[in-house]
Amino acid sequence: MLRDRRAEFEPVFYPKSIAVVGSFTTFAKGGYRFLRNLLNAGFRGQLYAVSASEDEAFGMRCYHSITEIPGPVDYVTVSVPARSVLALLDECAAKGVRAVQFFTAGFSESGKEEGRLLEAEMVKKARAGNFHIIGPNCIGVYTPSIRLTCGPSAFMGETGDISVASQSGGHVGQIIKGCIARNLGISKAVSFGNGIDLDSPDYLEFYGLDTETKAIGAYLEGVRDGRRFWNVLREVAAIKPVVILKGGKTVAGARAASSHTGSMAAAHAVWSTALKQAGALQVDNINDMVDILMTLRRVPPCPRGNVAIVSGLAAGGGGDSVAAADICLESGLTIPPFSAEVKEELQSFVTWPGAILHNPLDLSSLGGNMDNLTKGLNAVAAEPAVDTIILQAHADDICHGWSPEGLHRIASLAVSFAESKAKPVVVVLPPGLAESERLRAETRLYEAGLAVYPSIERAARALGLVSRFWARRG
Amino acid sequence: MLRDRRAEFEPVFYPKSIAVVGSFTTFAKGGYRFLRNLLNAGFRGQLYAVSASEDEAFGMRCYHSITEIPGPVDYVTVSVPARSVLALLDECAAKGVRAVQFFTAGFSESGKEEGRLLEAEMVKKARAGNFHIIGPNCIGVYTPSIRLTCGPSAFMGETGDISVASQSGGHVGQIIKGCIARNLGISKAVSFGNGIDLDSPDYLEFYGLDTETKAIGAYLEGVRDGRRFWNVLREVAAIKPVVILKGGKTVAGARAASSHTGSMAAAHAVWSTALKQAGALQVDNINDMVDILMTLRRVPPCPRGNVAIVSGLAAGGGGDSVAAADICLESGLTIPPFSAEVKEELQSFVTWPGAILHNPLDLSSLGGNMDNLTKGLNAVAAEPAVDTIILQAHADDICHGWSPEGLHRIASLAVSFAESKAKPVVVVLPPGLAESERLRAETRLYEAGLAVYPSIERAARALGLVSRFWARRG
Repeated sequence: MLRDRRAEFEPVFYPKSIAVVGSFTTFAKGGYRFLRNLLNAGFRGQLYAVSASEDEAFGMRCYHSITEIPGPVDYVTVSVPARSVLALLDECAAKGVRAVQFFTAGFSESGKEEGRLLEAEMVKKARAGNFHIIGPNCIGVYTPSIRLTCGPSAFMGETGDISVASQSGGHVGQIIKGCIARNLGISKAVSFGNGIDLDSPDYLEFYGLDTETKAIGAYLEGVRDGRRFWNVLREVAAIKPVVILKGGKTVAGARAASSHTGSMAAAHAVWSTALKQAGALQVDNINDMVDILMTLRRVPPCPRGNVAIVSGLAAGGGGDSVAAADICLESGLTIPPFSAEVKEELQSFVTWPGAILHNPLDLSSLGGNMDNLTKGLNAVAAEPAVDTIILQAHADDICHGWSPEGLHRIASLAVSFAESKAKPVVVVLPPGLAESERLRAETRLYEAGLAVYPSIERAARALGLVSRFWARRG
Repeated sequence: MLRDRRAEFEPVFYPKSIAVVGSFTTFAKGGYRFLRNLLNAGFRGQLYAVSASEDEAFGMRCYHSITEIPGPVDYVTVSVPARSVLALLDECAAKGVRAVQFFTAGFSESGKEEGRLLEAEMVKKARAGNFHIIGPNCIGVYTPSIRLTCGPSAFMGETGDISVASQSGGHVGQIIKGCIARNLGISKAVSFGNGIDLDSPDYLEFYGLDTETKAIGAYLEGVRDGRRFWNVLREVAAIKPVVILKGGKTVAGARAASSHTGSMAAAHAVWSTALKQAGALQVDNINDMVDILMTLRRVPPCPRGNVAIVSGLAAGGGGDSVAAADICLESGLTIPPFSAEVKEELQSFVTWPGAILHNPLDLSSLGGNMDNLTKGLNAVAAEPAVDTIILQAHADDICHGWSPEGLHRIASLAVSFAESKAKPVVVVLPPGLAESERLRAETRLYEAGLAVYPSIERAARALGLVSRFWARRG
């Protein structure tokens, strides 16, 4: 049974006041970057700077200890050397702080016994002081609704319903940036490093009952309490999709993970099987993680995995059709043939040579005739065997071979078609030689809530994985 | 024994005069786009427009037949309906034309007996008239040294030593654009569609002895004369690297290929084994094709496949290190541990916490300290077990967390390091939230001749495949 931990996590993800402890003299100091980014992001709460030896930071008064701060402090973010963390935790306890996040590194991940002992002492102090520790060796929490930015990462995006937990700060940053680039809102995210107090099962358990979270992404290098992790994961995955990237699959990766977050990686085959049994979606890299989260939130469930592919929007699309067919099939999708009615409808207006009126459909629409593209999409949408339409376009071919305006007309067509709800549509729009126009078109598609992929491989992999997920769900 | 076909292919790839046959009234007409693009590209030869019913095209006189043209005509590009091609070939024979390329489609790929018979007649006329046919159902030839652009694709890049043959026009365009984006020069490329006269073994045979060709890329959907194809491929692959992408691997892909270029696809497992035995490099998609060609031309052979990974150039790189370790090992690369000397050297200046001084090396260089980055690279370069260094950087983290200037300093550092020839270096620079700065930095790296990849997955896959290729070469 999942425990309802929402009250307990309130100060972790929604602190009303934050104290930044560290040094603020130069960019190279963690404290400088944490405070600067919170100020730049416009954190919606009270901010305090704390340094034993400095009096001022970014025009703010610098307190010499946490206990000196006049008002209450919910959350403390710490960038001080590891040797001074225990004294700092005593101050936090005295002040009644609720959550302490450590950017500070140099604990168990150093491989030294001393680091492990220090972590044990820290946890004891947290338990006694009735507060939580985030990390150490992490960049902390990202909650866009209160403009709480994640440590040294200055990014701030829209609020949404995806929540993320990651042992790696770099990876949580990449997931956040990947979501921002796609206009995909995040509810909350945390990088928890060594996870000595709050660990992956804790964050998962909280996200499981958090009504603002509809899908979960997690990057893990290892778990401390395996039994608890798997129990929690199974229960959460039964309620909402959980996408997991496991780092440290190989011997070299596991060695790196041990130095990174002090994690002991188990054999990957064991992990992989267990993740499947627990009902989680397993991905292989950060790009897949973001693709899958986007697909879960933006593409209606299609457990059959039946896709139609439409290519050749402004030039020949034969090669694209062959590639898409191969890649979709290899990704576990099905490409149902069109019925006689749909073929007849297509034949009624596709009269030019070069077009291929099967599925994949290559319209080879040389002039980028918008009426015919619309008719083509509607004909395919009328095919009952098709669940999702994949539209393939090459921005540079369209911009240079036809016109930049043509690209934006095709983007508008995709948006109108998606809004018509005739059938779910996703767009493949690879990078190339017209990046500024392509990025404009992509932004328009993302803003309209479409799923856009940079290659047919990534589209097919995401749609394949997610359709199998929905199929298992029944 | 490969035949020397250089004289025979001279008018195919280096025509001195081109006649464009078609209609020039609107953009939707193939003739219009072929002629416009040749004019825009600045083709270095004589251009003629030919149309039975039009008198003028883009300010040029329009001849009503090929035989009306006053000067010699080496190459004819044709965009007329399939029904009129035989009469046109008679004109070509009468004029002494050497190569005829058909954008015209509607032949064997239509699946109709009529189309197959027409193709047989065309080949007869070519043999009798002593000229070659390129296509039909293709976009023709790209030779940047004479500014001969490939049909409706308006792109024009640098001249180099990669040559490409592709049944698909869309795919040849994507390979050309991929090379242009990477500043990777192409010697020549051809899209040959149904390949009824000149077919894949012909282009391969010519490229094999062409002194301007150092690496070959080919996209194939099927071969007519399997024995000849495999014999030629084996001989060419013994002389220079041949990278092959086979379309129509799956049932759906094969069905699409048959409608696209009339190709009959053989079982993929047979192809795959035969390609390996012939000594070719097999890739799965267009991105891989371009990555592999770039790797072959830009990264010195490292048959051991021993890489060092350097992350954390301007922030923590622990997650990147774990990911790189997993992905490189899964791609068949080796990540040798650093020797005691190299570790000692690294420890002498990496004194901050968070850094991981193994291979993968996470410098976690928070301030982006350039001196320390240089020292780090040099220390790794001194490791005899390491063949190639993979530098991982996130443009958006650097630009937003440090400064855009920092990104360009890191790019300069990579260029200087590459120029020092201490050890081959490649760069992983993923897209993100600072695209204009990232593209500037990437362009700088490409212009300096470095290999740059958009993800560690693509870098590892390319380096793994190419190192195994060199290892087999012995």
